[in-house]
Amino acid sequence: MAKTWATLGVDLHLEPAGPRVRRGLTDALREAVRTGRLAPGTRLPSSRSLAADLGIARNTVADAYGDLVAEGWLTARQGSGTRVATGVPASPGRQGSTAAPPTGTASRPRPRSRPAHDLLPGVPDLSSFPRAEWLKAARRALAAAPNEAFGYGDPRGRVELRTALAEYLARARGVRADPARILVCAGFSHGLQILGALLRARGASTVAVESYGLDVHWWLLAGTGLRTVPLPFDELGTDPGPLTDQAAVLLTPAHQFPMGGTLHRDRRAAVVDWARRTGGLVVEDDYDGEFRYDRQPVGALQGLDPDHVVYAGTASKSLAPGLRLAWLVLPPGLVEEAARAKGGTDMCGALDQLTLAAFLTSGAYDRHVRASRLRYRRRRDALVAELARRAPQIRATGIAAGLHMVLRLPPGTEQATLRAASWQDLAIHGLHRYRHPHATVEPLDALVLGYGTPPDHAWSGALEALCAVLPEGDGPRAAGRGPTGAGSPTPAGDGVDASGS
Amino acid sequence: MAKTWATLGVDLHLEPAGPRVRRGLTDALREAVRTGRLAPGTRLPSSRSLAADLGIARNTVADAYGDLVAEGWLTARQGSGTRVATGVPASPGRQGSTAAPPTGTASRPRPRSRPAHDLLPGVPDLSSFPRAEWLKAARRALAAAPNEAFGYGDPRGRVELRTALAEYLARARGVRADPARILVCAGFSHGLQILGALLRARGASTVAVESYGLDVHWWLLAGTGLRTVPLPFDELGTDPGPLTDQAAVLLTPAHQFPMGGTLHRDRRAAVVDWARRTGGLVVEDDYDGEFRYDRQPVGALQGLDPDHVVYAGTASKSLAPGLRLAWLVLPPGLVEEAARAKGGTDMCGALDQLTLAAFLTSGAYDRHVRASRLRYRRRRDALVAELARRAPQIRATGIAAGLHMVLRLPPGTEQATLRAASWQDLAIHGLHRYRHPHATVEPLDALVLGYGTPPDHAWSGALEALCAVLPEGDGPRAAGRGPTGAGSPTPAGDGVDASGS
Repeated sequence: MAKTWATLGVDLHLEPAGPRVRRGLTDALREAVRTGRLAPGTRLPSSRSLAADLGIARNTVADAYGDLVAEGWLTARQGSGTRVATGVPASPGRQGSTAAPPTGTASRPRPRSRPAHDLLPGVPDLSSFPRAEWLKAARRALAAAPNEAFGYGDPRGRVELRTALAEYLARARGVRADPARILVCAGFSHGLQILGALLRARGASTVAVESYGLDVHWWLLAGTGLRTVPLPFDELGTDPGPLTDQAAVLLTPAHQFPMGGTLHRDRRAAVVDWARRTGGLVVEDDYDGEFRYDRQPVGALQGLDPDHVVYAGTASKSLAPGLRLAWLVLPPGLVEEAARAKGGTDMCGALDQLTLAAFLTSGAYDRHVRASRLRYRRRRDALVAELARRAPQIRATGIAAGLHMVLRLPPGTEQATLRAASWQDLAIHGLHRYRHPHATVEPLDALVLGYGTPPDHAWSGALEALCAVLPEGDGPRAAGRGPTGAGSPTPAGDGVDASGS
Repeated sequence: MAKTWATLGVDLHLEPAGPRVRRGLTDALREAVRTGRLAPGTRLPSSRSLAADLGIARNTVADAYGDLVAEGWLTARQGSGTRVATGVPASPGRQGSTAAPPTGTASRPRPRSRPAHDLLPGVPDLSSFPRAEWLKAARRALAAAPNEAFGYGDPRGRVELRTALAEYLARARGVRADPARILVCAGFSHGLQILGALLRARGASTVAVESYGLDVHWWLLAGTGLRTVPLPFDELGTDPGPLTDQAAVLLTPAHQFPMGGTLHRDRRAAVVDWARRTGGLVVEDDYDGEFRYDRQPVGALQGLDPDHVVYAGTASKSLAPGLRLAWLVLPPGLVEEAARAKGGTDMCGALDQLTLAAFLTSGAYDRHVRASRLRYRRRRDALVAELARRAPQIRATGIAAGLHMVLRLPPGTEQATLRAASWQDLAIHGLHRYRHPHATVEPLDALVLGYGTPPDHAWSGALEALCAVLPEGDGPRAAGRGPTGAGSPTPAGDGVDASGS
């Protein structure tokens, strides 16, 4: 049933009712902005008048507006209504993660017209990139590079970087690494595409994933022809029990994304046992394993069985996504297949690889990680303290590590909170967007809050905006939906709460 | 029919006769070296004894040895026989271009155990990479980069680089460029994979290519599900006449690879006319358009019709393959599809992109290209003069541009010449390896000689080794095979000969 949005000449194809209305409206609006049919600065009709125009609920329109504000396509400020963001180019590359797969942004869309407050997860503090140290390392690397480094390279990547990584990963992450089994790739997304292609070439059809995770990963796998099936989770983390004949399982054992928990040791043993029994592959996405605040980092699952686990690390969180440098540590039997799936040639710039190698071997990487850990820990502590003071009804989980936490909301309040955030020009994600479409676990209302992104000077303002939009503890919370209510054990959480223990 | 090579415990699966014997033997030996079954330094049996062992012709064994010496897997020196090269890792990344597709090395295998003399085409003089100037540009780029440059990027690549490229390509190559329509990619191979995926997503099945070209390009297209069909050529260059409903045609108009000619203006018009009539796409691989010695560079075909031609350029020849930076200038309607086919995210390091942008805008790129052009021209002139003096029977064609030339050999002498080269530890390619398997043009015997690779100090030694292996002009040449014999017009050549006109 097609409806025409006469006011703006945008054709919408909407189901008459149900959750798809909002999705359809969101997609149509995003597309209209992206293609330029809705010009930057255009003022949109009020949610009330558009809802009347379309014959749908006003809340549906308000939710769609809120989503698109959060994604950066629209802006909303009290007094001037909702407008198409200026600085939005009619071009690719800014598609939200709810656009048609496979778009495959490495983590999430980064609006170019920045919101006033950015608490989206997935990106570290880019203002803290160690420019001077990096340039020093580049100078050393350029001076030391053999001429052949400027030629066509080994598809596994530069040997200097693989050697430095093997040493670092063994020392810092407990990875059993060997330079010959490391494959450098252009970000984890690229590594996942390589693994997907490799699995497909082996005839695989299904990969198990976690119930909550990054949709771009599911889409990247789908793009290689693999179906993803979600595993359930509980207070011990993702449960490998239902694993049967899947070709592989993709996990975030050190720090579940986005829930924030650590995979329990029994679960670690169980998943490795499954891999040994069936020949399945475990893919360990260790995206931010360096950042653990209250005790020693959790060692890599790969250390348990390097013959069945692919360890995947990245410089995207510890340094910067813009470097496009990540690495896979592969079981011996997979190296050649992975190099072939990569296309048989290196795709990462040799100079950046040599620079990262010099950065690692000089100790600059360790120094940068230590300094970053301290800075992020301070932010987390301030955040937890502020929440305890101003929003004691909100429980923060997954706070022991990483660059994000989960704020559990009273049931039924996630959408309203996101809407309130969009009016504050606060970019933040709800937990629902990270839920696998076939997940069977009970849905939770929560915010996934990234505290890495804001530069230091913007941090307190962002915190202020956050506290202003958090829902009160009464009402909706009292109507908690049983086992997933705010009072239940934190699924896959760290067993720590806002007290920071 | 399986035969076991008892001497070394290598199982061979050989046809009893025919051209496949050599291919099978070459593949089996390469595989044995690659996997480590034949250890580095191992002395191989003489061609006579292995031939007797296998019941095949001695020449077949000698040819296979010669091929593998040229690829760097084996070494052959008079007095010490044929041995497995030392420094050959049991690893991927060194597969020769005759290994099973799709290996997709960007241009050709670069043996890690370097031959004494390297005249393989496809790689510039790596020793001339402008390290100091590059570091200067990196310093400027790092100082000027906005923080967001370190984040997840536009899938088209950094806007600073696209802007600098648009200006440069318009000025230097006559490309009608717009930063919004440029897509930065990790080498031309990556660009071709993106275009292949895009064409497949549109339902395409066939792409026309030139009769002589790079097999990795055919394999990369095959890897995306596209069949390649070769077009014939004559003295005007590749003939677009047979084009019908192919989805695209891949051409090297400015400097045919490997033949060296320029596409005649009538052919340029004809191919653009075909694209307009049918909606087909022309992909212009302008891999070394900067290097033309005797007159102004030939402008890009894309200038004729930016709506139907994809222009593809690269830093691999003008600077270094190790940068993994290339660019596509796309028709307006393809930008979004290409960005999606790229995976929806940037895959090239932001800092290298910013550095190349700074390198371009500061004029350092122009200076480097001018200096390189002079150096390569001197080499070419010395090569042509030396050949005229010492091997006047050999005709050099395709010498007006680029980093390689074609040395036409008397019919039937290509294999023997390559064999002689392997005994001199001279790495050089025969023309046959660049011939499309379904090409219908008459095969030619020739060498494809790259004069970019040797550093300056090694150049005269390489020239000496080359002159020592070139066949005499009598005998085979007198038995010229009609229209493709050495005396016929140079197909797709420049119409210039060794006199350098």
